[in-house]
Amino acid sequence: MQEQAYILPQNTSNWRHTEGFLKAIIEILLKYIKDENDRSEKVLDFHHPSDMQTLIDLTIPDDPFDLQHLIEDCKRVLRLGVRTGHPRFFNQISCGLDLVSMAGEWLTATHFRFTYEIAPVYILMEKEVISRMVSIIGWEHGDAIFAPGGAISNLYAMNAARHYRFPRIKPLGQSDQPTLCVFTSEDSHYSIKSAAAVMGIGADNCFNIQTDQAGRMIPEALEEKIIQCKQEGLMPFFVCATAGTTVYGAWDPLHSIADICQRHKLWFHVDAAWGGGLLLSPEHRHRLSGIERAKSVTWNPHKLMGALLQCSACFIKQDGLLFQTNQMSADYLFQQDKPYDVSYDTGDKAMQCGRHNDIFKLWLMWRSKGMEGYRTQVNRLMDLAAYFTAQLKATEGFELVIDPPEFLNICFWYIPPSLRTLNPVEKKARLEKIAPKIKAKMMERGTTMVGYQPDKQLPNFFRMIISNQAITNEDLDFLIKEIIEISKDL
Amino acid sequence: MQEQAYILPQNTSNWRHTEGFLKAIIEILLKYIKDENDRSEKVLDFHHPSDMQTLIDLTIPDDPFDLQHLIEDCKRVLRLGVRTGHPRFFNQISCGLDLVSMAGEWLTATHFRFTYEIAPVYILMEKEVISRMVSIIGWEHGDAIFAPGGAISNLYAMNAARHYRFPRIKPLGQSDQPTLCVFTSEDSHYSIKSAAAVMGIGADNCFNIQTDQAGRMIPEALEEKIIQCKQEGLMPFFVCATAGTTVYGAWDPLHSIADICQRHKLWFHVDAAWGGGLLLSPEHRHRLSGIERAKSVTWNPHKLMGALLQCSACFIKQDGLLFQTNQMSADYLFQQDKPYDVSYDTGDKAMQCGRHNDIFKLWLMWRSKGMEGYRTQVNRLMDLAAYFTAQLKATEGFELVIDPPEFLNICFWYIPPSLRTLNPVEKKARLEKIAPKIKAKMMERGTTMVGYQPDKQLPNFFRMIISNQAITNEDLDFLIKEIIEISKDL
Repeated sequence: MQEQAYILPQNTSNWRHTEGFLKAIIEILLKYIKDENDRSEKVLDFHHPSDMQTLIDLTIPDDPFDLQHLIEDCKRVLRLGVRTGHPRFFNQISCGLDLVSMAGEWLTATHFRFTYEIAPVYILMEKEVISRMVSIIGWEHGDAIFAPGGAISNLYAMNAARHYRFPRIKPLGQSDQPTLCVFTSEDSHYSIKSAAAVMGIGADNCFNIQTDQAGRMIPEALEEKIIQCKQEGLMPFFVCATAGTTVYGAWDPLHSIADICQRHKLWFHVDAAWGGGLLLSPEHRHRLSGIERAKSVTWNPHKLMGALLQCSACFIKQDGLLFQTNQMSADYLFQQDKPYDVSYDTGDKAMQCGRHNDIFKLWLMWRSKGMEGYRTQVNRLMDLAAYFTAQLKATEGFELVIDPPEFLNICFWYIPPSLRTLNPVEKKARLEKIAPKIKAKMMERGTTMVGYQPDKQLPNFFRMIISNQAITNEDLDFLIKEIIEISKDL
Repeated sequence: MQEQAYILPQNTSNWRHTEGFLKAIIEILLKYIKDENDRSEKVLDFHHPSDMQTLIDLTIPDDPFDLQHLIEDCKRVLRLGVRTGHPRFFNQISCGLDLVSMAGEWLTATHFRFTYEIAPVYILMEKEVISRMVSIIGWEHGDAIFAPGGAISNLYAMNAARHYRFPRIKPLGQSDQPTLCVFTSEDSHYSIKSAAAVMGIGADNCFNIQTDQAGRMIPEALEEKIIQCKQEGLMPFFVCATAGTTVYGAWDPLHSIADICQRHKLWFHVDAAWGGGLLLSPEHRHRLSGIERAKSVTWNPHKLMGALLQCSACFIKQDGLLFQTNQMSADYLFQQDKPYDVSYDTGDKAMQCGRHNDIFKLWLMWRSKGMEGYRTQVNRLMDLAAYFTAQLKATEGFELVIDPPEFLNICFWYIPPSLRTLNPVEKKARLEKIAPKIKAKMMERGTTMVGYQPDKQLPNFFRMIISNQAITNEDLDFLIKEIIEISKDL
C-alpha cells in the first residue's frame, strides 16, 4: 500500500488529529440540532450589529489558528445565529431542517458536476428526478436545469422564452429589435422585474397586473394591458402567473391566463417556486390546475418540499430549448470526442459553469418519504394552516388580511385593546406601527419569529408561514399567546 | 422542559434512531475521505451511462425507504462517483478537498441568509472577509457580493458596468439605446459572451480579442477593435481582462489594458476567478499587477484557494453601485422600519433572493491557514508546477504547448514513438486523436484523470491543472509514467 496524502489543516500532522476535529464538529452539530428542536430554547439571542462585533472575533489572522480554536469558532457562530430550524421560527418561506436532506448535503459537500465524465451518478439522478417532476407537472416530456434559487430559475425561463420567439437577440442583442414587454401580477416575486432589467428588456416594461382581494391576478386586467401594450407599439412575449405568491400565498387563475396567452401567442410561465410542492398532494393539487399548459415552470424544492437551500429548478417544456438558449460552444469544457454518449453532459444547458450539487439531497430526501410521505407531509401543513386560521378567527383582536387564506401563508393584524375603539383613520395610522413594535419585542425576547410587511394601502401586517414539518398546534397557539402578551403595553 | 419535536425522517420514531442514521452517514464519509487519499485506490470506476443505470436504482418510490436503505444508497453513490478529491485527479480547476472548508459546509448546510435579522453573524463575517479581500486586491474601499459561481459573478459585473454608464437601461431596456459592445480575449471564459447574450447586448457584440503565443490578450488588437467599433457606430463600454485563463493559465497585461480603458473611458473588469488566489503570495502576485485599477473583479475562492464549490465573489469598487443596479424595492422582504441598522441587510444588492451560505466555509478555512498558510500553499503549488514542467521537458515524447507555463495550467502533447518520425502534416492529423485515446484508456484504468481539448489550429492536447494541495512530486511522476505506459500500443 502506498503513502497516503490528506490535505491536512495547517498545524495538523496526521489523519487521527483531523478525524478528531471532524468528529468534534459533528458532535457540535448534533447537539445544535437537538437544541434547535427544544421548545424551551430560544429562537435567537438578539444583538445589534455593533454589540455583535464585540461578541465574536471575525478577523483573518496572519498565522493559522489551531483546530481547538476553530471548534470554538464554530460553537460561537452557532450560538449567536438565528435558529431557523426551530419549530417557532415562522419568519421565512424556507423553514425547518429536514435531517435526511441535511445528510445529503453533507455527503455532496465534496462533489461537483457538469459532465457525465466527472459526475456520472448525479447526472443520471438529475435525469430521473427531473423526469418525475416533469410528469408531476403534467407534461409528457420536458427538460430542466437546477439553478441557484428561484430568481435565477425565472431568469432562465424568461431568457428561453425570448430566445424561442426572437432567436436573433442572442447573437445580435436587443438594440435594433422592437421593445419587448412582459407581464406578471403586482403580487408576484420581484425577480420577474429583476430578470427584465438584467436582460435589457427594462424593469418598466415588466407590467404588474392588478390582483383581486385575495391577491390573484385579474385575467381581464391582463388581457386589457396586453392589448394596450400592442397598441402602443410594444411587443408582448411573456406572461408569468404565480402559483403561491410570496406574501398572500395566492393562486393566479392558470387556465384563464393560459387562454389569454394562447389567444395572443405569448409564452406562459408559471412561477410555482413556493406553490409547486402542493402538486404532491392529490387532495390539494387542483389549486395548480392549468400548470400543465405552461411552457416553463419554476419550482423550488427548497421551499415547500423542505430540501436544504439551495434547490430550485426551471422546467422548460420544449426539448432542446435550454441548450439552444444557453450554449456558447465551450469546446474546451464540453468536448464531443469523448468515449461515452455526450448527450449526457449537461454543462452547455446552463448559464453557470461549475454547479453546486443540489440534486443528491433532494433525491435522498424524496426516497426517505416516497410519494406517500410527501402527500402526508403537505396535507398536514395545510391542516395546520386551517387550524391556525380558525384560532385567529376565534381570538379577540386578530383580523385576517385575506379570508380565507388559500395556502400556507396566513396574513393577519393584531389590534391591541387600546386601538380597538379608535375611528378607522386613526386606527389605521396607529396599526402601521404595531407589527414593527411587536416584532422588535419578539426579537428581544427571542421566543419566536414571524415576518411583517405593508402592502399597497394596507398597514403593516404579519405574514405567518407554515412550512416547517416540526410545527404542532401548540406552537401555533403559542404564537397567538405570545403576540397578545407582548402587546399588553402597546 | 417542554416537548421536543424533530423533523424525523419517515419510518423513524425517535431522535436516537435519527442520530444513529446521521452518525452512520458520517462514518461513511470519513471512510470515503480516507480512501480518497489512498493512492492505491482508483480515481474512478468508469461505466457507460447504460451500464450505470443497471448498477443503481434511482427511482422515486411510492412508499418511504427505511434509514438502512438510505445508508446503502449513500454508499453506492459514493462508490460509483468520481473521486474528485483524489491526489491524482487533475481534470478540473476546482480539485482537492480542504477538510476545514468541508466542515464549514457541513455546519452551514442548515443556514441561509440575506438579512441581518435572520443571519446576523454571517452578514458581519461577509463584511469582514470582503473588506480583507478588497484590500488584498489593492483597493481602499469597495463592495462585493457572493454569487453562485464565476459566470454569475461576471454577469453581476457587466450589469453593474452597464448601469453605471447607461442608468436608463435598467428601467427602459436596451431597445432604443445604441448598440453596446464588450471586449474580452479569445482565451477568456465563455461566461463573458454568455452574459452579453443574456443581457440583450448580443453574443456577437462580445468581441474576442486576439491573444499572443502565450494566450495573453494583445493590447494593440484591443485598442484597434475599440476604435473600429466606434467607427461602425457601436458603443463600447466594458473590457474584461483575464487573470489566469481557463486553458493556458495566461495573464492578460492588466496595466496596458487599464490604460486603454482610461483613454476610451471604458469599464475595466478583471476576471480573476482562477488567478485571484495568487494575490495571496507576495512572491507571485506581481502577475496581477494592475488589478488595483479595475472597476470590478471576479475572484472564486472555490478555485485556487480550495474552498468547496460554490464560493465566488464579484467585487465592485464603487460603493452603492451593486445596490443601485440590483435593487427592485422589495419592501415585503427588506423592510426599512426594523429595530436595527438596516444598512446591514444585503438582500437588495443581489439578483438572487435567498442565497446559499458560501461565506462560513471560506472564513473558517482562512482562519485555519492564516495569511501565512495561504502564502505557503500557493507557493508550493507554483513549485509543483515548475517541477512538472521540468519533468515534461526532460522526458522524451512530451512537448509543451506554451513554454514556459505562467501559472498552474500546464498544456502539453504526448507524441507516441510511432508518430515521432512522421512528417508534420501527418503527425498533426494523427496527434489530434491521441489525447482522446489516452484519456479513454485512462478512464478505463481509473488510475488518474486529466483533461484535454483542441484550441484554434492546435490538435488536442492535455491541460494539466495543479490545484489540489495533496499533490506531491511522485503524483506528477506517476502521471507521466502512466501516459507513456498507456500509449505503448498507439
